[in-house]
Amino acid sequence: MIDLFLIGIGTGNPNHLTREAMRAIAGADLILIPRKGAGKDDLAGLRRRICQEVATGDSPQLREFDLPKRDAGAPDYRAGVDDWHDAIARVWAAEIRAGLPQGTGKVGFLVWGDPSLYDSTLRIAERVTAELPLALHVIPGITSIQALTAGHAIPLNRIGAPVTITTGRRLRDHGWPEGAETVVVMLDAGCAFDVLDPVGIEIWWSAYAGMAEELRLSGPLAEIGQQIARTRAEARARHGWIMDIYLMRRGTSA
Amino acid sequence: MIDLFLIGIGTGNPNHLTREAMRAIAGADLILIPRKGAGKDDLAGLRRRICQEVATGDSPQLREFDLPKRDAGAPDYRAGVDDWHDAIARVWAAEIRAGLPQGTGKVGFLVWGDPSLYDSTLRIAERVTAELPLALHVIPGITSIQALTAGHAIPLNRIGAPVTITTGRRLRDHGWPEGAETVVVMLDAGCAFDVLDPVGIEIWWSAYAGMAEELRLSGPLAEIGQQIARTRAEARARHGWIMDIYLMRRGTSA
Repeated sequence: MIDLFLIGIGTGNPNHLTREAMRAIAGADLILIPRKGAGKDDLAGLRRRICQEVATGDSPQLREFDLPKRDAGAPDYRAGVDDWHDAIARVWAAEIRAGLPQGTGKVGFLVWGDPSLYDSTLRIAERVTAELPLALHVIPGITSIQALTAGHAIPLNRIGAPVTITTGRRLRDHGWPEGAETVVVMLDAGCAFDVLDPVGIEIWWSAYAGMAEELRLSGPLAEIGQQIARTRAEARARHGWIMDIYLMRRGTSA
Repeated sequence: MIDLFLIGIGTGNPNHLTREAMRAIAGADLILIPRKGAGKDDLAGLRRRICQEVATGDSPQLREFDLPKRDAGAPDYRAGVDDWHDAIARVWAAEIRAGLPQGTGKVGFLVWGDPSLYDSTLRIAERVTAELPLALHVIPGITSIQALTAGHAIPLNRIGAPVTITTGRRLRDHGWPEGAETVVVMLDAGCAFDVLDPVGIEIWWSAYAGMAEELRLSGPLAEIGQQIARTRAEARARHGWIMDIYLMRRGTSA
């Protein structure tokens, strides 16, 4: 029997690691590290550094592998994602078999943020269980939402009020979510807030939230939307990649 | 100058502590520990145990104080909460002055979960800055939402889809949030899902999420709603308090 641990590691700040995550990494026999291709090697490098720092003595075996590419041109977005997850699951199963030829042991997979939030790892792990007998364990990690609110020292919600978490794609396609006061936008390929009438909207924006490179801007969207767009483009050019997130509020104030 | 650290400690599992949180606790001169009154002393006790476990050498000074009571009968809910936060801020300021008579040092306050999420600590800290010169720092922690999804090993969102976080009070007063597919309910004084037509709704419920006492139930709401209500009532009677959270999904499946 193989135990598979999906380990939330926070947003790139090694100090986000929980005790539970550190113990799971140090106690693993095998850690899988995906390579996402040129320009994204910061992420594989971060995983490697965390493992090396946390492991003691006989460190876990690290196995790096190339992630299959998603067919971004697939006509049906969800079906394209499904096929991609199937392909990744086959690679995981092959890597686990190769790394644990005796068919038993503890496998760890480090997940940026938390495994529950806009992350495919849980869905991939479920597919792997179709190929290998696996017990699945999830270890929570600090999300970029918490890194965003901590960096700005703001609450996520107004008192007793709801919060909507959504994606840049949905904001662009559907506008401000029905009935929402507070909206958190993740996975934005580029300033989807542009589609909104900015009047009355406040925004808190962070890039590389939680990391040493963290950038933060906040204020009325009408005043700082353009500044966010410029800052984002410059940072992306400088680092070769960007991960950003923002919170917006409108309507009655608390 | 006083540095005030609001430190997210996760949901009662000491292994949820991040490295950043442990360092902030160990490095504090003074830790404030609120007592919430009879039946809730598990929480003060947990804070004390975490401090004692994490601190090394000259441990921080722990100051326990009684939280003022909220006027639950105030006609305006938000105004009642505002007055209560003012009263708490005055107690904090008095405790900080008494604990750091020289007017300088690091003060820590341990926050269940994360300081951003349905928690009044940030709002209280802002009020304290009106009385004392303070620099405010927020350290993110694992929330009960992440403990819920990790325990059930489920994603928070469907692929590319939004998530609404709301309260039991709002669910009871307003029903299923407009346009939502996935809803997380917190701060529920008791099974507000009762107001919903359960047909087509799946629920994942946890009490004491992340703690040794954790209880989990999941399935179609129509089938297990009553079982959740019974389990919740029994656990509350046994422990003297309960904290629970649940995620519900309905509509098109991913």
